[in-house]
Amino acid sequence: MRAGPSQEDIRRHNLGALLRHVHLGGPISRAELTSKMGLNRSTIMALTSDLTAAGLVREELPRETGRAGRPSLVVRPESARVYVFAFDVSPDRLAVARVGLGGVILDRREAVRDRGAFELDELTGALSAFARQMRRKTRDDTVCVGAAAAVSGGVRKADGVVRFGPNLRAEEVPFGEELGRRLGLGLPVSVGNDANLAALAEHSRGVGAAVRDLIYLHGDVGIGGGIIAGGHLLGGHDGYGGEVGHMVVNPGGRACGCGSHGCLEAEVGERALLESAGRVQAGVQAAVQTGIHTGAQTGVQTGRPDGQQGRDAVRAVVEAADRGDIVAQEALSRVGDWLGLGVANLVNIFNPEMVIFGGMLREIYLGSAAQVRSQLTLHAMAPQRERLRLRTSSLGDAATLVGAAELAFAHVLSDPLEVLARANA
Amino acid sequence: MRAGPSQEDIRRHNLGALLRHVHLGGPISRAELTSKMGLNRSTIMALTSDLTAAGLVREELPRETGRAGRPSLVVRPESARVYVFAFDVSPDRLAVARVGLGGVILDRREAVRDRGAFELDELTGALSAFARQMRRKTRDDTVCVGAAAAVSGGVRKADGVVRFGPNLRAEEVPFGEELGRRLGLGLPVSVGNDANLAALAEHSRGVGAAVRDLIYLHGDVGIGGGIIAGGHLLGGHDGYGGEVGHMVVNPGGRACGCGSHGCLEAEVGERALLESAGRVQAGVQAAVQTGIHTGAQTGVQTGRPDGQQGRDAVRAVVEAADRGDIVAQEALSRVGDWLGLGVANLVNIFNPEMVIFGGMLREIYLGSAAQVRSQLTLHAMAPQRERLRLRTSSLGDAATLVGAAELAFAHVLSDPLEVLARANA
Repeated sequence: MRAGPSQEDIRRHNLGALLRHVHLGGPISRAELTSKMGLNRSTIMALTSDLTAAGLVREELPRETGRAGRPSLVVRPESARVYVFAFDVSPDRLAVARVGLGGVILDRREAVRDRGAFELDELTGALSAFARQMRRKTRDDTVCVGAAAAVSGGVRKADGVVRFGPNLRAEEVPFGEELGRRLGLGLPVSVGNDANLAALAEHSRGVGAAVRDLIYLHGDVGIGGGIIAGGHLLGGHDGYGGEVGHMVVNPGGRACGCGSHGCLEAEVGERALLESAGRVQAGVQAAVQTGIHTGAQTGVQTGRPDGQQGRDAVRAVVEAADRGDIVAQEALSRVGDWLGLGVANLVNIFNPEMVIFGGMLREIYLGSAAQVRSQLTLHAMAPQRERLRLRTSSLGDAATLVGAAELAFAHVLSDPLEVLARANA
Repeated sequence: MRAGPSQEDIRRHNLGALLRHVHLGGPISRAELTSKMGLNRSTIMALTSDLTAAGLVREELPRETGRAGRPSLVVRPESARVYVFAFDVSPDRLAVARVGLGGVILDRREAVRDRGAFELDELTGALSAFARQMRRKTRDDTVCVGAAAAVSGGVRKADGVVRFGPNLRAEEVPFGEELGRRLGLGLPVSVGNDANLAALAEHSRGVGAAVRDLIYLHGDVGIGGGIIAGGHLLGGHDGYGGEVGHMVVNPGGRACGCGSHGCLEAEVGERALLESAGRVQAGVQAAVQTGIHTGAQTGVQTGRPDGQQGRDAVRAVVEAADRGDIVAQEALSRVGDWLGLGVANLVNIFNPEMVIFGGMLREIYLGSAAQVRSQLTLHAMAPQRERLRLRTSSLGDAATLVGAAELAFAHVLSDPLEVLARANA
């Protein structure tokens, strides 16, 4: 209910809007920008010229268009020059990526993590060492404009502290602050819940692009959720919105790490599947070692080498079911039933246009789609489900990292010239 | 990502913002408006002058302030002159109110409704007859600027059709269109889900004012919900967002009118309470007569005269429990347990600042708060509940009507002068 914006506000808004078009949509002609942004040609030219001078975009002649007349210049993001650091901390894995403007993953390192205690020093030390290695390989004219991390836990909005993360064994950890200090780039490190950030990633540049109401369900050791309602991420009062994994679907059911019973996570998470499939003994946790195995620095490594837990163990159950293994089929079917009931509840509550299954839930959904759909038919109201689309993540295992990168780019997209000037200072 | 607004856009925005301040906050001095809106004094004076000339507000000297110096004029809404019609259609009751700018209920009529089929002609006939009676009593200089209805059902966003309403026995009913035709005021009638509108009402001028993340739970025959997330009503893709009554809390539990089993509505709704308390025979629906008893035109009438169902029957159980009736206490306790589990799920999913119990749930919550809180402790994560407030509706039975009035005022608040000019034409 404030006064209208100043001319300077409008210019900043327009610069950010143009950069966002290029960042999310990729190379685009000035003519298209004119039409998409509803601004005249001279304004677009002035904005583009400012962003070019700052080194955020460049203009090039398009490739052969096949049309007569002078072609409109194409505006491209300076992906190789302007980048952010994106971090991802999940129970089994650490990942760091250098992501260029436009969402291009330029470099990426990973390490296997054991499911031990959350050792802040060790973790931030390993992550910042990766970042330094990558930074040493960059050209002199590159500029880092932001950094952000996805963590498997709840992040307090007020101060970015990791308030809880049972599967990380984290509680009240000032993770972003410490990582920022260790990085030594003079940049704050924003922190977000991994499923929330993956939801943003799928909404920005994945299967949920242009979908204003979607639910992204993330399976790792536990089950997380990110909800886009009316085009905005559901954050909640303190920042813990979207914890759908702790919706009770089966009162009195399996014990959950949160202290309750019968949560979606308890019935559908990794442990439920592996125990039902007889792959681990119920109630006995696999031996836990603390440590980060930085030997595995490149390539995607998931799960423990012994295959007793982690993504590979889950995949093994889905593949066994596919080959006709009855025990695996029954386990998958049971998990699919609870997953379907949970999805039906969320569909009734949110009336989303799309539900996206990501992380480990991608495989589980693909192996139990019949159960999920059948539960939806039983429990979701017809008007809510008649236009619903069920999809798997299109960004796959990179979704959380891509989401962290989007969070890191947020500053430069809201005030491009100021952030770049600061980064170059 | 469009261009900045024009001067005319800004003026319209500021006029609407000023009128909204006066409408929601009541009489306010020009000095306060200057500070709250961040505009200078001359702009506030010009805006106020435009709204005064249109007859939407008036300026008066304040009552004795006790302070020296020339007092700032106070801007008041023209509540007696500018009004909307608000309608409410619930299973047991029809209500119509004439509501003045500022949210003042100027006149109100009600009728008992039997739980029969949804007879569109009869319903819209009765509602428009009430409106005509009220209109005949108004002064010549009054002006109706909008009309809206709350219905106990899901309303399709695209066309305002009542898509479903099992407790009203409505399906695919073009209710707003027909009511608009019968009213004959040349005004469209906006239609919204009753719990959604009550949530907006509590968020605008009730116990949830200034609360950006809240869940309003509405008990009538069934259980509805309205969710405000980040300051916005959760609408969903088609407009059916907030149907929390059909979240399954007890798989394989009581049959629900939606076709599923164990929904929150099935375990907590009127029928569950009355059956558990032995007040109606399980599985046998009380005889249903179709008709509207317009004899009871004024005063609040709820429930059937025989007390076998409706709000009075629910109140009777809560009162019996309060007097020590063991059967009633056990019924209330059972319902409170399921209500608490449902609330815990919603708290985990949304991380709201406040949960508001309205309609029949006000009484049920007050009679079972211990159960609700105990389930919350068991099933809601500590970070999500540590700052949570549980409240009862402050607008009471008027919440749905007040919410419908807010929906009806939406047009005049977004473009005051244009809407008033049209209404006066």
